[in-house]
Amino acid sequence: MDKRILKTVKDIKELRVQGATNVAVSGLKALKFVKSEKEFEKASKLLASARPTEPMLRNGLKYVHYKHKMGSTVKEAVDDFLKMTSHTFKEIVEAGVRRIPDDSVVMTHCHSSLVNSILKKVKKQGKKISVVVSETRPLYQGRLTAKELSKAGIKVKFIVDSAMRSFVNDVDLCLVGADVLTADAFIVNKIGTSMLALAANEARTPFAVASELFKYDPETTKGLLEPIEKRKPSEVWRTNAKNVEVLNPAFDFTPAKYVNFIITEKGIINAFDVHFSVSTTYRWMF
Amino acid sequence: MDKRILKTVKDIKELRVQGATNVAVSGLKALKFVKSEKEFEKASKLLASARPTEPMLRNGLKYVHYKHKMGSTVKEAVDDFLKMTSHTFKEIVEAGVRRIPDDSVVMTHCHSSLVNSILKKVKKQGKKISVVVSETRPLYQGRLTAKELSKAGIKVKFIVDSAMRSFVNDVDLCLVGADVLTADAFIVNKIGTSMLALAANEARTPFAVASELFKYDPETTKGLLEPIEKRKPSEVWRTNAKNVEVLNPAFDFTPAKYVNFIITEKGIINAFDVHFSVSTTYRWMF
Amino acid sequence: MDKRILKTVKDIKELRVQGATNVAVSGLKALKFVKSEKEFEKASKLLASARPTEPMLRNGLKYVHYKHKMGSTVKEAVDDFLKMTSHTFKEIVEAGVRRIPDDSVVMTHCHSSLVNSILKKVKKQGKKISVVVSETRPLYQGRLTAKELSKAGIKVKFIVDSAMRSFVNDVDLCLVGADVLTADAFIVNKIGTSMLALAANEARTPFAVASELFKYDPETTKGLLEPIEKRKPSEVWRTNAKNVEVLNPAFDFTPAKYVNFIITEKGIINAFDVHFSVSTTYRWMF
Amino acid sequence: MDKRILKTVKDIKELRVQGATNVAVSGLKALKFVKSEKEFEKASKLLASARPTEPMLRNGLKYVHYKHKMGSTVKEAVDDFLKMTSHTFKEIVEAGVRRIPDDSVVMTHCHSSLVNSILKKVKKQGKKISVVVSETRPLYQGRLTAKELSKAGIKVKFIVDSAMRSFVNDVDLCLVGADVLTADAFIVNKIGTSMLALAANEARTPFAVASELFKYDPETTKGLLEPIEKRKPSEVWRTNAKNVEVLNPAFDFTPAKYVNFIITEKGIINAFDVHFSVSTTYRWMF
Amino acid sequence: MDKRILKTVKDIKELRVQGATNVAVSGLKALKFVKSEKEFEKASKLLASARPTEPMLRNGLKYVHYKHKMGSTVKEAVDDFLKMTSHTFKEIVEAGVRRIPDDSVVMTHCHSSLVNSILKKVKKQGKKISVVVSETRPLYQGRLTAKELSKAGIKVKFIVDSAMRSFVNDVDLCLVGADVLTADAFIVNKIGTSMLALAANEARTPFAVASELFKYDPETTKGLLEPIEKRKPSEVWRTNAKNVEVLNPAFDFTPAKYVNFIITEKGIINAFDVHFSVSTTYRWMF
Amino acid sequence: MDKRILKTVKDIKELRVQGATNVAVSGLKALKFVKSEKEFEKASKLLASARPTEPMLRNGLKYVHYKHKMGSTVKEAVDDFLKMTSHTFKEIVEAGVRRIPDDSVVMTHCHSSLVNSILKKVKKQGKKISVVVSETRPLYQGRLTAKELSKAGIKVKFIVDSAMRSFVNDVDLCLVGADVLTADAFIVNKIGTSMLALAANEARTPFAVASELFKYDPETTKGLLEPIEKRKPSEVWRTNAKNVEVLNPAFDFTPAKYVNFIITEKGIINAFDVHFSVSTTYRWMF
Repeated sequence: MDKRILKTVKDIKELRVQGATNVAVSGLKALKFVKSEKEFEKASKLLASARPTEPMLRNGLKYVHYKHKMGSTVKEAVDDFLKMTSHTFKEIVEAGVRRIPDDSVVMTHCHSSLVNSILKKVKKQGKKISVVVSETRPLYQGRLTAKELSKAGIKVKFIVDSAMRSFVNDVDLCLVGADVLTADAFIVNKIGTSMLALAANEARTPFAVASELFKYDPETTKGLLEPIEKRKPSEVWRTNAKNVEVLNPAFDFTPAKYVNFIITEKGIINAFDVHFSVSTTYRWMF
Repeated sequence: MDKRILKTVKDIKELRVQGATNVAVSGLKALKFVKSEKEFEKASKLLASARPTEPMLRNGLKYVHYKHKMGSTVKEAVDDFLKMTSHTFKEIVEAGVRRIPDDSVVMTHCHSSLVNSILKKVKKQGKKISVVVSETRPLYQGRLTAKELSKAGIKVKFIVDSAMRSFVNDVDLCLVGADVLTADAFIVNKIGTSMLALAANEARTPFAVASELFKYDPETTKGLLEPIEKRKPSEVWRTNAKNVEVLNPAFDFTPAKYVNFIITEKGIINAFDVHFSVSTTYRWMF
Repeated sequence: MDKRILKTVKDIKELRVQGATNVAVSGLKALKFVKSEKEFEKASKLLASARPTEPMLRNGLKYVHYKHKMGSTVKEAVDDFLKMTSHTFKEIVEAGVRRIPDDSVVMTHCHSSLVNSILKKVKKQGKKISVVVSETRPLYQGRLTAKELSKAGIKVKFIVDSAMRSFVNDVDLCLVGADVLTADAFIVNKIGTSMLALAANEARTPFAVASELFKYDPETTKGLLEPIEKRKPSEVWRTNAKNVEVLNPAFDFTPAKYVNFIITEKGIINAFDVHFSVSTTYRWMF
Repeated sequence: MDKRILKTVKDIKELRVQGATNVAVSGLKALKFVKSEKEFEKASKLLASARPTEPMLRNGLKYVHYKHKMGSTVKEAVDDFLKMTSHTFKEIVEAGVRRIPDDSVVMTHCHSSLVNSILKKVKKQGKKISVVVSETRPLYQGRLTAKELSKAGIKVKFIVDSAMRSFVNDVDLCLVGADVLTADAFIVNKIGTSMLALAANEARTPFAVASELFKYDPETTKGLLEPIEKRKPSEVWRTNAKNVEVLNPAFDFTPAKYVNFIITEKGIINAFDVHFSVSTTYRWMF
Repeated sequence: MDKRILKTVKDIKELRVQGATNVAVSGLKALKFVKSEKEFEKASKLLASARPTEPMLRNGLKYVHYKHKMGSTVKEAVDDFLKMTSHTFKEIVEAGVRRIPDDSVVMTHCHSSLVNSILKKVKKQGKKISVVVSETRPLYQGRLTAKELSKAGIKVKFIVDSAMRSFVNDVDLCLVGADVLTADAFIVNKIGTSMLALAANEARTPFAVASELFKYDPETTKGLLEPIEKRKPSEVWRTNAKNVEVLNPAFDFTPAKYVNFIITEKGIINAFDVHFSVSTTYRWMF
Repeated sequence: MDKRILKTVKDIKELRVQGATNVAVSGLKALKFVKSEKEFEKASKLLASARPTEPMLRNGLKYVHYKHKMGSTVKEAVDDFLKMTSHTFKEIVEAGVRRIPDDSVVMTHCHSSLVNSILKKVKKQGKKISVVVSETRPLYQGRLTAKELSKAGIKVKFIVDSAMRSFVNDVDLCLVGADVLTADAFIVNKIGTSMLALAANEARTPFAVASELFKYDPETTKGLLEPIEKRKPSEVWRTNAKNVEVLNPAFDFTPAKYVNFIITEKGIINAFDVHFSVSTTYRWMF
């Protein structure tokens, strides 16, 4: 098999590629190097199992197989999916931008390219916004977000994660990304997201998610309990204290009842409509 | 004035002494060096204003003045208060220990010597317990807690602060300390405490506070809005990104409705009974 | 352009025509007077922008254009829509009537012809009902409702708006109309509706909405924040006290979580199913 | 008419056949004995009205008529439905089994063959589970459940119904069956189900329902208030105390907001998606 | 009996004197005209029963009797109570002022002289505040409030009562007065107060009450269900529509769980501490 | 020791005497037979440990010791306590009766002589009431209640325990007794009570408790986790199915937040005021 495929599989496995979209895009691009039907099958399987917690890549593979069966070459099908992905991104940004009025204070957690694109575009339109960013331990993705937004001229307030409840009552909207959407209407996103959602709900602060419907995991429809990636303890604390076990789940589950709306490529939807939207938009997924 | 007094004032001001009880004890000990009534008055004022966010020291000073007016020497009064403080500590530990049955999983946040003493004594009694500890950004006091408990042979699960909601549904009791108790029935404690309380309440997991009634701030009865210490941004993030303001409040407010009970020197009380308990126990406070 | 069209546009603009359905019907009737394709386009634009807060008229115009493109004349298409509107009304009344058992106490707010038609038909069937009506400041539409129902022989209890919480625990059902349904599952209706829904939810009193799916605003799918009509301050208070600003929003937003069901031309649906029902019933809307 | 049909109607009427699925299956099997179109019509009506509170039988009859109109014989159509029913059952068990991880404690109420089949299969797979069962007054169906599960080697804790809140905070999942699913997103199931759901929700314990979409009552779409079977007082208490009226409703209503997910033949769905799933799966139902 | 006494009784009965404090003050002042023990007894009874819904007057009478029994003349005792009342007022204003920080937006309902005095004093101190005032149907006391505050230079936003939920999420504090405090921890105040409290609670907006402890009704301790004054229908609507009954309750009940704190002459207390505070402050009341 | 004492101890131990008050009364009566100080001490200890879950008896013993130390004979002290108990009962009934207006529907669970006495007295006063009674498995004390009330001419609706949520939205008040009151503001009462309280709270139906303050357990102040009596499995189900463990806890814990008020010998109090009321009324208890 082409070494570039194997390298991609390894990169995904060893977390050198991160973020639902990046993993999907790099996995599919690698697929273009297959040289035979047999290799296509084999590469697909390798890629699909490289990161069990990333349904978007698996959805992309499913799409390519579906298109291929309908007559496209693998390369065409991959390009098709990548184009769709990029179009989808723009649609979500477009809808998201319209939801943020002038003079808004937005709060976000972790780093989402969708969320950042929305916020930067709102700023570009001349609307006045400021953003509260939580640092997002253990990997401090909040710092990335803060730097990116501040570079775009957006005023940022930066806080530790546990200060979310202290600030959420004074913002106009919480806006976060997503890694997985599930059949029972949960949003899987960076650890801490469900805390923010809970606190936002307590304060009647709207809580929104920006996410491609591609992130839906059709396996959850069949009963899969979406697995949560358990990362290295050392990211949290390099300790050798005995009796201490460091637990480092990367994501948590936010129930739909705490989510006011989701910004998707099909527009604004309520959080209980995810399955409906996915199943009528991407029939090949099931 | 005695240099040791001035040094103590400076130490308190510059945060070299920390924790409600430590601040109170070191402040009062310094008071023993006063040599005249005039110096007593002056030193008291200096100490009282050294940390506006620490009512326990001010309560101690008030007690010493009250006793002094009743005829005690300053030294006697100080010793009296210190003895009372240490007795109080034991009473709380005693009551707390009884509330934790065998085979319990307890969750705590930050570092509280009361909480740790209770947990270690429970362990010593041969009861089987394990403890979930959150790291407590930005200063990682959770690591202190984890080390201390693990050294005592207690099994610890260590997590980032934003993972609290992911774990709180599977513990038997949340137990934290307090810095201030207020007239309108709030618990002021380390930032993140109110998040844990909110998540515990959502999961019907009992949430308890261990605190001396000395931590009541009688000024809040008169309408004071308890001030929250704002600490150095650099504790959170040393950034020079422009447009980024790092906010670092040290504490947050937990409402009584999320607190199942408080373990005090007067025993177990419900969280709405703080003012009643304080006002009938320490009349000199008002 | 035909003067009757211009007059209708002006009447709608200056609030001489009111109520989602009335605005839609009179706007579409005016459209019948167009004499050319060009005039059709122009008149449509004028009508669509006459009241930015009324999606039903815009949906009607969209339908007429859709049908016209498919081969109908404008007149035929308008008549089609009007017929559909009137049929829809009957369907909703039919379903609504079945939901109200004998010996019911219903509570309503403002004046909705759908709600009143349901209640009067229930009465006509010989069922015993009584209705609690809130006056609906500032324009007292509750008085209209009360008069209409009382004339039909229904016993009415009439209260001020702020007494809603005092009465809602003793009624069997709250039933109101709607002006707009949104993509994120909100009901836009007369100011005060969301208060009643909140109080009904607190008391476990079912809260229902009677509304045509035509009132869905497809622009909200694209991210539009549904605008709320701000009416003249003098409707509330003719004051010249300086420093006093009278604010008079005509509507408020009721979240789906406080709505038990919606009575539509597709029957009883749950409030999170609005987008699904609209998108499968009226595909031309998107 | 064939006596076997009349006997079945009588058996259903007089509660000798019980449980939504049993009633449907025995009613449809009887239908196979019709000898003419006229008898088919007549028998259908008799069966449909035999138990007004059982939509599954009515849905089966509707299916048979629909298929018959499309050209099938009655017998073929009945067999078709029965096959579909049995296939559906397996699908639900399959999905349900995947949702229950190793080392789970599940709580159930009443007796549901779907729930029991799921639990027994989980056990068979070698997963360790235990089950809390409530007795389910007045007919003690909980004892049936307990016996069946214990025979399969599953550890059972058996409690009175009113102890549900005392145990629900310590289980991992509540899982019950359903008799009817309604248009406004309620689950109709054995009396006590909504109590368990309420208590589960208070404790953040997931609450799931296993149910065929066949149990949806399309009449509720049209406004029917699902009737609740009122059973004999003597099942509860044989008393002749005057002034005492024994009320014995067989079912209660659980709102979707207390249900985390439903396990159906279409897989895991959220409880607000029932109407969507039914209407896209079984179009003949409407 | 002195005519001034009889006139006062009549004025109170016929609502020419209004507001808990005004009624108490005018009733007690009248008492000064008694000329004998017998007249004292008789006048007390007449005054006590003039307005069954005003415990403050009854408490005043109780105090006068208590003092008289201890040796004071009636006049002395009345003057004592009046002085106490005025002192109490100042104490409440003092504490209330400290709770309102610079740059606050406060929301109030109806007209409370305590609330207005607090707000005007805050303004006088140079703090920047603005106030949202609801009109308070049917008697529009909100207009009085708006005028009084605007005259003091405070910016006012004026809304209809049913718009409270639309505005409460954007204010920093709700602050209202009270007419009665009850043994089971309810606040009785102008109709609409409990709606505001409910909406404030939903939005995590603090809700405070300013009230003298004199307004506690000790009869509620003995089981009295505090009666609610039912005022003339014509205040709401002069209608002769038959079948229409206009109901005009003057007050409603706000439960303690929606009240964050109460500002009293004993300082800030939590709403569950009313009975404790009253019973330790005014022992003569019981 | 007197055999009557030993018999009483045995009767209490073996559950032949039941109900907090009965246990206390019979235990104290037995105490009258002691013949020496030594026997007094010994008998007290035996009685105190006869039923660890009954604080009222222990409180009675404490009172007798306290009085004895102050100079009373044991017999005098016992009679004193019994008189106090009977007086207390009357006070509670008096206050309770005033809280139940004409035309009320009350719901109760289990059998409480306080509740029944209140309801029968209300009926005697000529007020129209009806009562919903739940059967109270496993021992059916609800039947006792139903019989007693029906004999007094009160209309009773009798239901299974799990139907509580189906009826609670249509009653005016829930009223139950109590076995223990705890320091952290819980009501310990018959299993099922907390379910009813939860469902009442969901429906905004007031939930009240009638209880002597004697039932407060002062040991809970010191940290005791109130033990819950575990009764014989055979009361629930005589089964020999292996793998089935029948659990039969006699009581559950109702948190103060679900209790609107408590009717005590000190009158109506809010549920968070129990400790305050006890500690100011019965100082000898601590």
